[in-house]
Amino acid sequence: MEEISKTPLTELGEFGLIDRLMKDVKIKEKSTIKGTGDDAAVINNGIFHTLVTTDLLAEGVHFDITYTPLKHLGYKAVVVNLSDVAAMNAMPKQITVSIAVSSRYTVEALEELYKGIKLACDNYGVDFVGGDTTTSRSGLIISVTAIGQAMAEDIVYRNGAKENDLICVSGTLGAAYAGLLVLEREKKAFKESQGAQPDLESYDYILERQLKPEPRLDVIKALAHLKVKPSAMMDVSDGLASEIMHITRNSQTGAEIFEDKLPIDHQTGDVAKEMKLDPTTLAMNGGEDYELLFTVSQEDYEKIKDNPAFAIIGYIKEKNAGVNLIARDGSSNPIQAQGWDALNKK
Amino acid sequence: MEEISKTPLTELGEFGLIDRLMKDVKIKEKSTIKGTGDDAAVINNGIFHTLVTTDLLAEGVHFDITYTPLKHLGYKAVVVNLSDVAAMNAMPKQITVSIAVSSRYTVEALEELYKGIKLACDNYGVDFVGGDTTTSRSGLIISVTAIGQAMAEDIVYRNGAKENDLICVSGTLGAAYAGLLVLEREKKAFKESQGAQPDLESYDYILERQLKPEPRLDVIKALAHLKVKPSAMMDVSDGLASEIMHITRNSQTGAEIFEDKLPIDHQTGDVAKEMKLDPTTLAMNGGEDYELLFTVSQEDYEKIKDNPAFAIIGYIKEKNAGVNLIARDGSSNPIQAQGWDALNKK
Repeated sequence: MEEISKTPLTELGEFGLIDRLMKDVKIKEKSTIKGTGDDAAVINNGIFHTLVTTDLLAEGVHFDITYTPLKHLGYKAVVVNLSDVAAMNAMPKQITVSIAVSSRYTVEALEELYKGIKLACDNYGVDFVGGDTTTSRSGLIISVTAIGQAMAEDIVYRNGAKENDLICVSGTLGAAYAGLLVLEREKKAFKESQGAQPDLESYDYILERQLKPEPRLDVIKALAHLKVKPSAMMDVSDGLASEIMHITRNSQTGAEIFEDKLPIDHQTGDVAKEMKLDPTTLAMNGGEDYELLFTVSQEDYEKIKDNPAFAIIGYIKEKNAGVNLIARDGSSNPIQAQGWDALNKK
Repeated sequence: MEEISKTPLTELGEFGLIDRLMKDVKIKEKSTIKGTGDDAAVINNGIFHTLVTTDLLAEGVHFDITYTPLKHLGYKAVVVNLSDVAAMNAMPKQITVSIAVSSRYTVEALEELYKGIKLACDNYGVDFVGGDTTTSRSGLIISVTAIGQAMAEDIVYRNGAKENDLICVSGTLGAAYAGLLVLEREKKAFKESQGAQPDLESYDYILERQLKPEPRLDVIKALAHLKVKPSAMMDVSDGLASEIMHITRNSQTGAEIFEDKLPIDHQTGDVAKEMKLDPTTLAMNGGEDYELLFTVSQEDYEKIKDNPAFAIIGYIKEKNAGVNLIARDGSSNPIQAQGWDALNKK
């Protein structure tokens, strides 16, 4: 077949590439409630709906094996998918795991990886129901698919946010990226010093956030307990800035987020200071937090205002108001997604 | 973590490795009807059951980009998964596709790949509902998950074969492997001759079987139309010898297969002759046929005996009889799985 033009992958970015590749994909099968464009696909199975989501982690792109224990890697590969099911306000029930692995990995190394996979399954009551195992020419690729279950009326999409809804986020933001910065710094120091042990003691929280994130299924349960159904929800994997753009674009709204309301842990603040970075930048663009970003009606304010699990960080506005970060000085700054792009990372 | 022993992956083989990695995986979630060990996992969703299966194809292991058109590759990556759903006597409804791709691939190349993926979806009425797209350090990895739907009572597992059941197979066997042998031979000839065009005209059928296999959803429909529910079924991806061992092991039976009943196309026979191979070996161990191997009760004999879509190739025997190939001379030879092993292929 003749190839007329040759566009490098990096030219489009991940979302641009997906848009182009998927541009004429149409949903025809009547059981498909939702295809691409949310945290998970939604399938009608009569009584329960099935949620399906998949993520692929590639060595040298998503993880660096020099400082990522294989057990943690297996755990994280599962968690990022469970987080996507949670983001639909649903509980994950099953996973499949496929790996492609080069011959420099031993059976014992893969056993470590699978220990982490099984631990995540045990911790979150998820069954490991299938997969595929093969060699690769280079490195390790892990592809996980998570299956969830929910009643139709409980599922929350990205497109339901309404003007004046409260914007909430669970946990803290920016910590996973701060952890990554520390790991990269210590790797460099370790190489330069030819083997000095890294000083990681004061970074326990942010390192755990990077190496062993947890899916916020507890938040889904808490919301159900409070009888709060979010109007829109997604998980924070690419950074708050990127995710709030998804919610507002899908919901046809604007938004205002208050810088002074962003939940930032003191270790994240410390790392930002050491590295001369703005902690707000880490919180907005760091990514890999796997927290839940959701919007709720003002009517639910009383139910959630004192819950330590969530912070209220802003409001949904009408579309023409744009999507803005209100800085500590009161100035309004347009938010641009500068999240992590798997296609541009070297 | 201290690593005591270092076992190379090739030592265990694919099935041995999977057994070891999955050895303490237990099913706990009540919606899981079937985990690993069949063509697909089975999940109870109230009215319908959901089937989930996943396959990962790696460049240099499962496909050679020098003679595999990307559109065909995309098509095949979907088909091998649809075939696994068919093997549960179910219809596939949705797929997700994740790819990891090195920067030597262009956007236009990926568009070709996705054209094949979408064509398979269109041809088989399947929705493309999600996925993930990322870079890899080397080559192309395609991970597809297929979701199917069926009523509980229609699903066919590997473990239901009973003594005296008829063993049937759809289509022909060994052709996809014969096609691969021709492609490998012509690639070598092309290199040695520095560019002579390969002679592929007389191999159209076997090349199509290798490059563009089809899932036998027509067989599933035909069986439903005939009101025949197989007692056991799986698809032929690793070769008949390997698959009959799976069915007999899972069903706790033996089997007798008759060499002279094996459906072998004349082009497969021609290639075997040219390459001084036994056509029976190609049929038994070739793999990638994506035909359906199934067993039916003798009571169904009249319904299937004249159907050109299937061949009756043998009988299920009691376990102690073993699993044997009855040669043309009447001798009985134990069948050993020598199918394709993704971990041993260089």
